[in-house]
Amino acid sequence: MESKLGIGLLGLGTVGSGVAEIILNPENRHPLVSDIELIGVAVRDKKRQRKISIPDQIITTDPLQIVDDPRIQIIVEVMGGLEPARSLIIRAIKNGKSIVTANKSVIARYGDEIASLANDNGVYVLIEAAVGGGIPIIEPIKQSLGGNQIKRVTGIINGTTNYILSRMEKEGAAFDKILKTAQELGYAEANPAADIEGLDAADKIAILSGLSFGGNINRADIPTQGINNLQSRDIDYAKRLGYQIKLLAISERIDSKESNKDSLPLAVRVQPTLISQEHPLAGVNGVNNAILIEGDPIGEVMFYGPGAGAGPTASAVVADILNIAGVKKLGGNGTQLDPLLAANSWRDCHLVGSDEIIQSNYIRLICEDSPGVIGKIGKVFGERNVSIESIVQFEANPLGAEIVVITHKVTQGQIKDSLNGIKQLDEIKEVAAHMGCL
Amino acid sequence: MESKLGIGLLGLGTVGSGVAEIILNPENRHPLVSDIELIGVAVRDKKRQRKISIPDQIITTDPLQIVDDPRIQIIVEVMGGLEPARSLIIRAIKNGKSIVTANKSVIARYGDEIASLANDNGVYVLIEAAVGGGIPIIEPIKQSLGGNQIKRVTGIINGTTNYILSRMEKEGAAFDKILKTAQELGYAEANPAADIEGLDAADKIAILSGLSFGGNINRADIPTQGINNLQSRDIDYAKRLGYQIKLLAISERIDSKESNKDSLPLAVRVQPTLISQEHPLAGVNGVNNAILIEGDPIGEVMFYGPGAGAGPTASAVVADILNIAGVKKLGGNGTQLDPLLAANSWRDCHLVGSDEIIQSNYIRLICEDSPGVIGKIGKVFGERNVSIESIVQFEANPLGAEIVVITHKVTQGQIKDSLNGIKQLDEIKEVAAHMGCL
Repeated sequence: MESKLGIGLLGLGTVGSGVAEIILNPENRHPLVSDIELIGVAVRDKKRQRKISIPDQIITTDPLQIVDDPRIQIIVEVMGGLEPARSLIIRAIKNGKSIVTANKSVIARYGDEIASLANDNGVYVLIEAAVGGGIPIIEPIKQSLGGNQIKRVTGIINGTTNYILSRMEKEGAAFDKILKTAQELGYAEANPAADIEGLDAADKIAILSGLSFGGNINRADIPTQGINNLQSRDIDYAKRLGYQIKLLAISERIDSKESNKDSLPLAVRVQPTLISQEHPLAGVNGVNNAILIEGDPIGEVMFYGPGAGAGPTASAVVADILNIAGVKKLGGNGTQLDPLLAANSWRDCHLVGSDEIIQSNYIRLICEDSPGVIGKIGKVFGERNVSIESIVQFEANPLGAEIVVITHKVTQGQIKDSLNGIKQLDEIKEVAAHMGCL
Repeated sequence: MESKLGIGLLGLGTVGSGVAEIILNPENRHPLVSDIELIGVAVRDKKRQRKISIPDQIITTDPLQIVDDPRIQIIVEVMGGLEPARSLIIRAIKNGKSIVTANKSVIARYGDEIASLANDNGVYVLIEAAVGGGIPIIEPIKQSLGGNQIKRVTGIINGTTNYILSRMEKEGAAFDKILKTAQELGYAEANPAADIEGLDAADKIAILSGLSFGGNINRADIPTQGINNLQSRDIDYAKRLGYQIKLLAISERIDSKESNKDSLPLAVRVQPTLISQEHPLAGVNGVNNAILIEGDPIGEVMFYGPGAGAGPTASAVVADILNIAGVKKLGGNGTQLDPLLAANSWRDCHLVGSDEIIQSNYIRLICEDSPGVIGKIGKVFGERNVSIESIVQFEANPLGAEIVVITHKVTQGQIKDSLNGIKQLDEIKEVAAHMGCL
């Protein structure tokens, strides 16, 4: 009898339990699930009550026992956090084990180092669960879009913020109020900073950029704006103009002025963005995620589904395990990797400076209600070659007026320069909001 | 130097040209594209003007020269039609070549025979381009969802009918008129039968069912209703009730009354179906396709994109080529296949009879405008245990009235029985429409 592929699990939280559940119950799933075996599980607290029943003798509180176990070929890391996760992954790779991980923080920061080490050791590091929860997105980019020249990746890739924005739009309620109920319902964490400040989405777009464009980028360089300062009046004005506001993570190749021909310039950012009601991403509500990919010759494809949750994430983890199990069936000399699945970088990429990012913009100004002000604003934009799609004055009362400007596509440098000019106008009290617009 | 993977192309129409274009221009695509080489191309007419420039010496009018060429490892069949495509595929497999094909007709009818032959010969038959045009759907089902117990697959998988339905809904125009302009614009063929009668969608759902549930089903058994008899008044009434009408292909596992425990019972059908405006498939308009997959533990995921067209289809064909190129890098002893990529059936499936299909229904009746008629209709349904969600009388004039009934979920046997009873009522002139409803 052929021996089964040994799995070691680091972490037995909701995702880990979901993975174990699938491995222990292979019925009605792909027959390859029967070919994998759970050898060991590392937990923090052996005594904790769990829904899933796992034989006591395979549970340990020492993760090194798992990472060093010669019967284990694949380490599934679902403990989260930077350390000890990163060190355990590195040790497992050096031990010749492939890695399946849902840890976007580690991959977004150390993906390059880890991938290179994995390549040297002839093992895979698969990360389907790190982006988009259960949505198959990493494997399709690697295994189904390789013939394309990818132009742009646009994602709603943080479920918490999408949930908050969907409810703000529907109920017209304020951010703080919705965040509080989201926390009570378990859709937002007690410390929501990573989600609402856009950091989680930045981790994920760093990963998607690397895979889509074939080269690593520096996670720390991604301009990131969350929804924590978003006001419900902006959602309201956007709606009246025919838009929704979504927290989008965008990565696109651009024609850069720079002379560095050896590296592909990318414009990457995380930002609240207005999208028209007809945009494919407009129907993505609640905790769902969706990733829209544009390429040549494919055109536009979108992947949609649950962006988080134990079940979906476990599905993604098992997908990775099965992919490794599948190629293991091929035998081979044990050092060659399937280049699609391994997905090493194949070119250099770099981020352009944020001033070079080109997009349409939504700008809300608070100003005096004076008849000449729209003309003056238009003049400032015009002098910087910023073409305007619309200027709308929304509220006017003795205390002032609110003016919303939607620009055509211009560089962020032009916008920054224009806003500096606008702030000099006597009538302008405040640049109250600035977002992207698709 | 490692030798490249040799490709033979059968057909140089728009898709074939798109594939050749990618292979001949590998820049900015995955480096694996550089590892494949176009060895030969079979065309019907060598003299035909083509946009793409291909060396004359690799073009032939004899497909056997391609299929028998020992330098070729992968045959890309994009000629279409049942014969000679099927015979050439079989001959190529016997010659030890892997197959990449966009030919849904051949695969829906002979997929079983072809897969078994491929398995015996240790080669792959990959069909990403056969369903959903460029949308990665076949590979994600095979390579990313294997850990799930799939419950249901629901697809908008025919672009022509979705284009017609989208325009009928938007413009309130009649089917015949929209079909005519669709033909003029190239969105519908001169002979549109395969599309508008639902046969193309039936081919595709047969293929998706086989992959999702792991067993072959008999294509000929799929109950298939097209949109050729759909009236614009049904689209109008559906809209007033909060629905859109889409041509859906549905395949779902059911709890059958049958005693056959060794075979998974599936309810499969192609049918115009009402979906609520909030349904994820409701935003899929024009020639776009989308496939919604429900499974445990993943929940719902959807894949959306261009359902046809040369570029998208070429993208899917090249995806398959790259997958084969990827696993070929692993070496191995040459007879083992990656079971995820090969995707052989792993259990028996069968279709339940159409009377056993359970769904909500939309029924439009033409009847006399008499006060008691709704009560009588309700009684007939009630006697068959058909629970009704709503009965609405839409038009009433001296010539009669139109009544629309939406039922809760019941078997099609109950509906058939009820409609027979309703036809017996003196007041009923005609059962004018019957569709599914999600």
